[in-house]
Amino acid sequence: MAKQIENKSLQKLANLRRQHKGLINLMPLQTGGMLTDAAKEALTEFGDGYSVCDFCQGSLCNVTNPPIRDFVQELLPQFLGCEVATITHGAREAKFMVMHSLAKPGDSILVDANRHYTTVVAAERVGLHVIEVPHSGHPEFRVDVNEYAPLIKEHAPKLILLTYPDGNYGNLPDAGRLGEIAQEYNIPYILNGAYAVGRMPVSMEEIGADFIIGSGHKSMASAGPVGVLGRKKKWEEIVLRKSGKYSNKEIELLGCTVRGVPLITLIASFPYVKERVNNWGEQTSKAQWFSTELEKLGFKQLGEKPHRHDLLHFDAPVLYEISKRVRERGYFLYKELKERGIWGPQPGMTRSFKLSTFAADRQQLGVVIDSFKAILNKYS
Amino acid sequence: MAKQIENKSLQKLANLRRQHKGLINLMPLQTGGMLTDAAKEALTEFGDGYSVCDFCQGSLCNVTNPPIRDFVQELLPQFLGCEVATITHGAREAKFMVMHSLAKPGDSILVDANRHYTTVVAAERVGLHVIEVPHSGHPEFRVDVNEYAPLIKEHAPKLILLTYPDGNYGNLPDAGRLGEIAQEYNIPYILNGAYAVGRMPVSMEEIGADFIIGSGHKSMASAGPVGVLGRKKKWEEIVLRKSGKYSNKEIELLGCTVRGVPLITLIASFPYVKERVNNWGEQTSKAQWFSTELEKLGFKQLGEKPHRHDLLHFDAPVLYEISKRVRERGYFLYKELKERGIWGPQPGMTRSFKLSTFAADRQQLGVVIDSFKAILNKYS
Repeated sequence: MAKQIENKSLQKLANLRRQHKGLINLMPLQTGGMLTDAAKEALTEFGDGYSVCDFCQGSLCNVTNPPIRDFVQELLPQFLGCEVATITHGAREAKFMVMHSLAKPGDSILVDANRHYTTVVAAERVGLHVIEVPHSGHPEFRVDVNEYAPLIKEHAPKLILLTYPDGNYGNLPDAGRLGEIAQEYNIPYILNGAYAVGRMPVSMEEIGADFIIGSGHKSMASAGPVGVLGRKKKWEEIVLRKSGKYSNKEIELLGCTVRGVPLITLIASFPYVKERVNNWGEQTSKAQWFSTELEKLGFKQLGEKPHRHDLLHFDAPVLYEISKRVRERGYFLYKELKERGIWGPQPGMTRSFKLSTFAADRQQLGVVIDSFKAILNKYS
Repeated sequence: MAKQIENKSLQKLANLRRQHKGLINLMPLQTGGMLTDAAKEALTEFGDGYSVCDFCQGSLCNVTNPPIRDFVQELLPQFLGCEVATITHGAREAKFMVMHSLAKPGDSILVDANRHYTTVVAAERVGLHVIEVPHSGHPEFRVDVNEYAPLIKEHAPKLILLTYPDGNYGNLPDAGRLGEIAQEYNIPYILNGAYAVGRMPVSMEEIGADFIIGSGHKSMASAGPVGVLGRKKKWEEIVLRKSGKYSNKEIELLGCTVRGVPLITLIASFPYVKERVNNWGEQTSKAQWFSTELEKLGFKQLGEKPHRHDLLHFDAPVLYEISKRVRERGYFLYKELKERGIWGPQPGMTRSFKLSTFAADRQQLGVVIDSFKAILNKYS
């Protein structure tokens, strides 16, 4: 590489700034991961590498200062409604960990058709066949969990997984009913709650799952990446089996996972997150109102109706028509919204796009609705 | 859990603070991971979950804003002396990724006896037999890489790995000679440079390795956890093989790895880290001087002499004798040093302990030497 190119690349590394600071944030990946003030302070305090390990005695989840042990061993299991919990690098890494422990290459896993792409990639990494329980298609994309039963009989999968809710439509399938099916067929059941845990009340025990997975950066007001994995105690010896050579090191965690600052933000935000799930009624009512208002503009909300989650997906043929005749093509929407102080739909998307109403209040959502109106007027 | 215990645990989560702030830091895990001012700013700017993904088009290492692509595709390979590079969750996760891609359960891997424990645990996670090239034992613990050759012939391992330097003694075995052996036997060679990359000049190509692994939080002035994996291009299709279903998603990365703030600190600190490796001569001379001074006090430096790395391990029988007759037992040393503004040896350790001179200047190390003298005088 020529020195000149290198210098240019190095220069870009100086003064790293986000362009979306201070905007009304509707970006589905981000609305549940905004830090609390406590987490921001913890971030600065524990920024230096390996700061959380000052008083480590050999196991991350046993560190008492900072209070990782209390968080992981007491608070987190209670919050997740499970017997034991662990920290992971994220939801996808938790899925891989469970699949890698409970299944062998060539085995099958049965998942919902709305699963996140990382469910498939984690299964591929283990060498599993992925079988999908179909959804109902456009416009609702509902998954009927009763369809798991015949597929279990047909394929004898080693594991089943349900995405609750899925990240595309924000649908909440009947997770509790699937718990009954899992029990009936005696098959380990993973609930991927990356968009549930930390946003809404959810209990692994009530649902009857064997594993519950959450994402710190997606839904628990944490820096990324960090995840949580709750489970029944009976899986402890398998999923958290210890090294033959190092009796205090869990093989699937490679000893320790998040030995750094995302874990501290997860802990610092937890008291707030624990409380905010109690406001879920207002969150869903806000999402429904917003969806109704946007449908009045000619957009069509996909997924379940009335909607029971802040994650919303809209078909917007009217915006797509505009994108075909403007210079910026699909990027016009991103630009128009940004000029109005709003950040949310993936830049370039107009035909259909996803939004989350989780972090915005009704007044801010009113601004969003008015902005969509203004944009439509401008181009009509 | 009773409500009272829960409240007590929740209270501990408020106001998270480090006890070792502002001390002279000699903690081997931490001296290479202290953030630059630029990294501290980036930490705050990109603290919110999934901030680095504002402009993601489907692949973390292709994000141009922040300039992840330039960093990963241009700057990092040049820095590591390799053809291609990737971001990982850390050094251990990089080792697992390579082992999991190149070897099958039941295969063997040949490693040095000074390897980090995570080398063994990563191999266990894949199901590999670990064969160790012995070290020379107390006090030098040297690894003679020529001993790899007969063990390669005997065991036909799928991979060889060298720890450069090891984290226990800071020994730097002849990595280049092992490169020749690897070539002679045509066997993929992993260089674990978790304590080298970011501290000292090191080039995968010059050494003749197939993979080079570094740790952001250990040696690249980054928040934890984050790592780097450099490799020859010929391994790209195997280690970074794509998902059959999602053609832009790497299976071993589960799509993306460090989708958050540790990566930003790695990038923000990089211009500084790139320069600091050029001061390695002064770093080793400082370490040698410090070691000589501590040996004058009756401590015995283990590992290679003269030492060529800032990571130092001392036998300290004189401190151990004291620990046997004081109330705090082994913790007296931690306490005495902390009172003098110094943090380094693992709390509880006195018989032998590890220190790193990397982050302290000569004046500070003078304070450390004088403090050890004063402690010895106090208890003599």
